[in-house]
Amino acid sequence: MSPSAVTINDVARAAGVSKSLVSLTLNDRPGVKSETRERILQTAKELGWTPNPGARGLTTRRAYALGLVLRREPRTIEVDPFFAAFIAGVETVLSERGNVLVLTVVPDAAAEERAYARLAADKRVDGFLLTDLLAEDARIPLIERLGSFAVSLGAPPGGSPFPVISRDYDSGIDELVAHLVGLGHHRIAHVSGDERMLHGLRRRERFEEAARAAGLEPVVVPTDFSPEQGASATAALLDGEDRPTAIVYGNDPMAIAGMGVAHERGLDLPGELSVTGLDGSHIGSFVYPSLTTLDNDPAGFGLAAATALLRLVEDGEAADVALPPARLVVRASTAPPAR
Amino acid sequence: MSPSAVTINDVARAAGVSKSLVSLTLNDRPGVKSETRERILQTAKELGWTPNPGARGLTTRRAYALGLVLRREPRTIEVDPFFAAFIAGVETVLSERGNVLVLTVVPDAAAEERAYARLAADKRVDGFLLTDLLAEDARIPLIERLGSFAVSLGAPPGGSPFPVISRDYDSGIDELVAHLVGLGHHRIAHVSGDERMLHGLRRRERFEEAARAAGLEPVVVPTDFSPEQGASATAALLDGEDRPTAIVYGNDPMAIAGMGVAHERGLDLPGELSVTGLDGSHIGSFVYPSLTTLDNDPAGFGLAAATALLRLVEDGEAADVALPPARLVVRASTAPPAR
Repeated sequence: MSPSAVTINDVARAAGVSKSLVSLTLNDRPGVKSETRERILQTAKELGWTPNPGARGLTTRRAYALGLVLRREPRTIEVDPFFAAFIAGVETVLSERGNVLVLTVVPDAAAEERAYARLAADKRVDGFLLTDLLAEDARIPLIERLGSFAVSLGAPPGGSPFPVISRDYDSGIDELVAHLVGLGHHRIAHVSGDERMLHGLRRRERFEEAARAAGLEPVVVPTDFSPEQGASATAALLDGEDRPTAIVYGNDPMAIAGMGVAHERGLDLPGELSVTGLDGSHIGSFVYPSLTTLDNDPAGFGLAAATALLRLVEDGEAADVALPPARLVVRASTAPPAR
Repeated sequence: MSPSAVTINDVARAAGVSKSLVSLTLNDRPGVKSETRERILQTAKELGWTPNPGARGLTTRRAYALGLVLRREPRTIEVDPFFAAFIAGVETVLSERGNVLVLTVVPDAAAEERAYARLAADKRVDGFLLTDLLAEDARIPLIERLGSFAVSLGAPPGGSPFPVISRDYDSGIDELVAHLVGLGHHRIAHVSGDERMLHGLRRRERFEEAARAAGLEPVVVPTDFSPEQGASATAALLDGEDRPTAIVYGNDPMAIAGMGVAHERGLDLPGELSVTGLDGSHIGSFVYPSLTTLDNDPAGFGLAAATALLRLVEDGEAADVALPPARLVVRASTAPPAR
């Protein structure tokens, strides 16, 4: 074929790699392994590929960047077990595709709106990853107005024109409560997380529904998801009348802190107190007793969200993704209550 | 004064805020609290401030972004106790200053070089935060060649023209070993971290020096810093002849995993085995027994590094920062060995 007719499709086919890897390599984007890159460049040279200025212009209008705007106290990133694993999942995708992540933390709703507007207007990102969904969330209409793209973790209550990455967590909570009831527990408490966040609220509601369905009176102590408040909620529950024989914590770090408090008081775990986390952390399988929890796979969320958002940016459409339902991971921290 | 003579200095003085906050507000950058922003805009209006096109051009040549390029397997982010807290510290500074963080993960040295070159050439970042320093590190000369800016966490062995953020960790390790020797331990092992990283190597060397200085024969089991390898190293040490009475782990997650293994075998902690971490994590104070460790304050590193890099970008110079020396945090996981 004549050199001028050689396309990146031809190079991809001849080099035995994807079109997207060829595009990254020929546009000198990072993220392609050196061996692959060498092979692509060699193949392009052999076929006589030359850049098509129009196509290249089209390509470089992309920012090759996704945005993550967090409206939080920056220090909460440090203790959030979801954050680092989610970022790891996102980067697994971006790293392979030569894209970068633009991360910014803002103090309030007005600063949040300006951050989205500025990142979109400056074309610094091609779209946004929406986490920490709130019961009333203004970000979906904002991003529509800005003409940018997004994917959200969980379904926004007001609906969304953008892909939604979701996971059925309700059935897992049912299963977790059934597991404890099956072991013979009648007094089960829930140390819930921040209920301003949709997932914190929904988990507490579902716990209460599942407990009532089993004929139990649910006991709930609300917290902000921190190990500090997990520890103090545990102390309050253990000091109270009608001490629970099992506690379901809103996340693994609170459960680990709760086990610490119980150990301090000389309780035998799980004999005298069964404990579970939620959102299965990496360290949860290494503590003693190893922690029964509901898996969540934040890295899987990150991977699915970044994949869907890049597809939306590239193809103009991408489907919702339903991740596999949360899985109950039974380890050593749950057992029948002592008689 | 005549409106045309009003500068952002005048607005800053009249509004009682820093020049940098005025600059962010008038350039419509995110990161300024809404009340402050309103006051600045009101003051600017009252004084009759109008933008100076030349000055504004100068300002907008800034990317208002710092870069962090990690050469790693993305999944290692998830279990790295330093990462999330370091990011939190960086964002504490960037959030206040309306700057964003550009994060990218690359698979190898060649992809790393391309990532730096591309981010610098595209003016997508104003400078780079250098972490994970290696014994032989090509990034300092690369960034010099690119004409960009950087700060490094720790002193590069080949020297650096850029600010270095460092912390004396050696004296902390001496203190930690002295603490264990003072309790009466004679067989102290070190489960060391990845020795391709400067800090992993240096900690192992210093542990050996401190142990020998105390007349002990150091025992070292190298790992990759993961809880998995922390657990298997512990099993090997507990199964071996001449079992140690104390183990110093290269980080807190490995120590938590090691305590889990010891608990599983029915050992009384700290009576039959004293355990310490390094790099003090948040969760370390909540486990049982609460973990003796050497503080590191990754958030403090992030804060100092981002502050120095922004100063370097804005003023063209910034000094090295020596953070306070690592502090020994004695908790419940260390005690005299059982007789």
